[in-house]
Amino acid sequence: MHECNVACVWCRECIAWALPHISVSLSAGLSAAKLLQANGLSPVVLEARDRVGGRTFTVRNKEVKWVDVGGAYVGPTQNRILRLAKEYGIDTYKVNEEESLVHYVNGKSYPYKGSFPTVYNPIVLLDFNNLWRTMDDMGREIPREAPWRAPHAEEWDKMTMLELFQKICWTRSVLNFAKLFVNVNVTSEPHEVSALWFLWYVKQCGGTMRIFSTSNGGQERKFNGGSGQISEGMARELGDRVKLQSPVYRIDQSGDVVVVETLDKQTYTAKYVILATPPSLNMKMHFNPELPPLRNQLIQRVPMGSVIKCMVYYKENFWRNKGYCGTMAIEEEDAPIGLTLDDTKLFIPSHHLRERLSSKSVLRFRLKKICEIYARVLDSEEALHPVHYVEKNWCEEEYSGGCYTAYFPPGILTQYGRVLREPVGRLYFAGTETATEWSGYMEGAVEAGERAAREVLCAMNIIHQSQIWQTEPESLEVPALPFDTSFWERNLPSVGGLLKLVGFSSFLSVAAAAGLVAYKKGLLPRS
Amino acid sequence: MHECNVACVWCRECIAWALPHISVSLSAGLSAAKLLQANGLSPVVLEARDRVGGRTFTVRNKEVKWVDVGGAYVGPTQNRILRLAKEYGIDTYKVNEEESLVHYVNGKSYPYKGSFPTVYNPIVLLDFNNLWRTMDDMGREIPREAPWRAPHAEEWDKMTMLELFQKICWTRSVLNFAKLFVNVNVTSEPHEVSALWFLWYVKQCGGTMRIFSTSNGGQERKFNGGSGQISEGMARELGDRVKLQSPVYRIDQSGDVVVVETLDKQTYTAKYVILATPPSLNMKMHFNPELPPLRNQLIQRVPMGSVIKCMVYYKENFWRNKGYCGTMAIEEEDAPIGLTLDDTKLFIPSHHLRERLSSKSVLRFRLKKICEIYARVLDSEEALHPVHYVEKNWCEEEYSGGCYTAYFPPGILTQYGRVLREPVGRLYFAGTETATEWSGYMEGAVEAGERAAREVLCAMNIIHQSQIWQTEPESLEVPALPFDTSFWERNLPSVGGLLKLVGFSSFLSVAAAAGLVAYKKGLLPRS
Repeated sequence: MHECNVACVWCRECIAWALPHISVSLSAGLSAAKLLQANGLSPVVLEARDRVGGRTFTVRNKEVKWVDVGGAYVGPTQNRILRLAKEYGIDTYKVNEEESLVHYVNGKSYPYKGSFPTVYNPIVLLDFNNLWRTMDDMGREIPREAPWRAPHAEEWDKMTMLELFQKICWTRSVLNFAKLFVNVNVTSEPHEVSALWFLWYVKQCGGTMRIFSTSNGGQERKFNGGSGQISEGMARELGDRVKLQSPVYRIDQSGDVVVVETLDKQTYTAKYVILATPPSLNMKMHFNPELPPLRNQLIQRVPMGSVIKCMVYYKENFWRNKGYCGTMAIEEEDAPIGLTLDDTKLFIPSHHLRERLSSKSVLRFRLKKICEIYARVLDSEEALHPVHYVEKNWCEEEYSGGCYTAYFPPGILTQYGRVLREPVGRLYFAGTETATEWSGYMEGAVEAGERAAREVLCAMNIIHQSQIWQTEPESLEVPALPFDTSFWERNLPSVGGLLKLVGFSSFLSVAAAAGLVAYKKGLLPRS
Repeated sequence: MHECNVACVWCRECIAWALPHISVSLSAGLSAAKLLQANGLSPVVLEARDRVGGRTFTVRNKEVKWVDVGGAYVGPTQNRILRLAKEYGIDTYKVNEEESLVHYVNGKSYPYKGSFPTVYNPIVLLDFNNLWRTMDDMGREIPREAPWRAPHAEEWDKMTMLELFQKICWTRSVLNFAKLFVNVNVTSEPHEVSALWFLWYVKQCGGTMRIFSTSNGGQERKFNGGSGQISEGMARELGDRVKLQSPVYRIDQSGDVVVVETLDKQTYTAKYVILATPPSLNMKMHFNPELPPLRNQLIQRVPMGSVIKCMVYYKENFWRNKGYCGTMAIEEEDAPIGLTLDDTKLFIPSHHLRERLSSKSVLRFRLKKICEIYARVLDSEEALHPVHYVEKNWCEEEYSGGCYTAYFPPGILTQYGRVLREPVGRLYFAGTETATEWSGYMEGAVEAGERAAREVLCAMNIIHQSQIWQTEPESLEVPALPFDTSFWERNLPSVGGLLKLVGFSSFLSVAAAAGLVAYKKGLLPRS
């Protein structure tokens, strides 16, 4: 069966080293620890699970050879993770996008090419164009390292993304696709997330095109042999400095050294500790002294998204014979899936399936539902006959809390964002949520881990403060192309703009007509 | 100084026994444990702190004799907590409301009587009347025990309370007061909370009048000697079954008994465990097996409100001489306070002060700001000369997470609400957040603790399932009066309704006038 082709449902980026419960003598997560070790220090990595990799997880067995059940995709501008992969000799390969992509909506399949579905209705076209342009324009106002300083930060943070979409979108088609866009990118619902936060999130991934595209975007490639190899490579390098099955439950920095206790009854002491968990998993630890009030409240306010990654295996990639590359953007009320890639990402929107998440016995039900929607979208009976199925429910993982990443409900980013990576005594904070480029992705995890390591190096006077934040040279193998916008994309009016253009004269006509009728019917005094 | 009169800033209800980290051989929080003990069982209460009382806390010292720095108020329909207080011989006294209340807005003080400020502008009056009526009408549709089953549950849960207010309110005055109403009742912002959740919250407290009123409402009385006495009474009864300074960090129910480990290295075994913490503090524990996915995600999604309770002491209650009872509803952009009572509740809205919460050195700054606003509202220089000050910042408490209660951001109640008190194996859930009457208050904590205890008794076949939920007879000492609404309150139109009434003819006139002008100016062809 190892020759099978895969169509899968999944959970994307993931934090190779935002390991829940890393706390360390002198430092951090794997990438932090690697950098500290390279600087002659002696880090220890405390990993809660029985494996490294956190929100990445490469499963290997006879049936599938290997499969990434967690974060898997990588693309241009994600230069840090590409650098690490290269160091360990891990190649990437392109996700198939030769044939047509397909957009399934109102029970029909529409093939298309490029980043977003093709639109024929001119009003919908204006509306789509205006949506992406508006989101990118708003994103440009938001500082990636401090979104709470955006000129309209308070206003946008008080709105949910759904509210903002309702203001921007004129047509139901575009509003629905906009909702899918949120589901797919942050595994949560538009009404759950702050507009400021989501706009920031898209911006720091390089904009709407970069985040959503396969070619030239975040889903361009996967790692040959699985993304897990990167963490495994670093863990190998660190050797017995990595302690598995060591969930941290207590951090005491009341004395001269930081004392860290783990569930397996071990006690570690360190000069510094880097917490490389999602913010909400700081809650798993008891702190002495207590965390400052803002951090104590922040970590209750940034929940993890909800996703199950599922891979459906077929004997043949029959969709390619039908002219489809395997990318499906699916809009259907009760569809278990929002977006699929060939070899492949599909995605179960959190909303509809949450109720069913609670039972493992629904695995067969889920597989059935997925195959049925494939069969409808691809108009193919073959979709109903998978040969193998793999899934991973990230919502049940105590030491992830969910996937892909933490989201900010309305009001939180402006009030609490500034303490996201603010050190607390000798505690420093990593985890992809603290990154400023591709936060939420493997790339962000590396940025955050290395930045936190440099904060510790700075505290030890090994490097200067100006060296903490470093830019990354572009990958030679995976260069980024710009996304050019056309004159029309930049200048077409929005639907609202169009109405204004034609509206003044229309208003006059309507008012005048109404007035004339009234006048003629004697409802107005003739003067 | 013990003869001082107090005007204070505070944090209201509180969960005498939603003790963070109670987990127990055979049971629960203090009220749960009390009920279990009365049924011949042997509960143990594991309390994280060095005191009982949780979100209630009565501080005693020479300066103030006693002061409630946490939950303090009690009123009619809170019959369970009144029953317990009576059992321990604790009296209540009425909060002073003899003289006028005062509403401070746009820099001016307006005295009033009754539950809500008096309004003279007829449009604002209609708008106010419609706000309370609409909230109560919507509340009537929401089942108190299952708000996710309300006919419009999904629609209302997708909205923030700010969105709903923007739909209901026509005038800025009413919108601003509506925001204050949220601040004061749930220590969070209208844009942070789900409309469905807030409407449910007000409903299960008995409606807008009951929750907000002093006389005949939630703030009618305080306990003579402090609310902390109730928990202390129960703890005394339980004797050495109550273990202080015993934060639970691990719960293992993989074997025949539940094994509970505490930070002080003790191990307890039990047949059943009741978790009587706010939901988010379940995160402080490591579970084996892992919690089910829905609960694992719920506990990341319901943060605690933000509040500092502050008491300012004066030599005399000078406000009474000026005809004020001490109740002040304060609307001012940067005011540190939203609502004050005499002896007394004041309240620091979370929004404006969050940034300043992080430092203890701001205590003097806070006191100064509070006194200055008192001086303006009461037009009194005496307000600037306090003789004593006490404050309690609940946001910094690791084992409360905040006060008064957990809030639900948009989208969470419909998706996760149903697992709020759903047992997980031999774990049962108490804490005021799981209550259905006065959830968020001391009353709700007693309801929840006793219900959870009865769930355990039922699991042990000591009582029947039909006995788990019990109603409480009305307190004889603190009876509830109905809130009658007048014919006009029920039937006055909203501002929108008024506009519709007068609108049809107005529209015709305007349109006709515009048409006539156009006609006369030759913009329309004369036919």
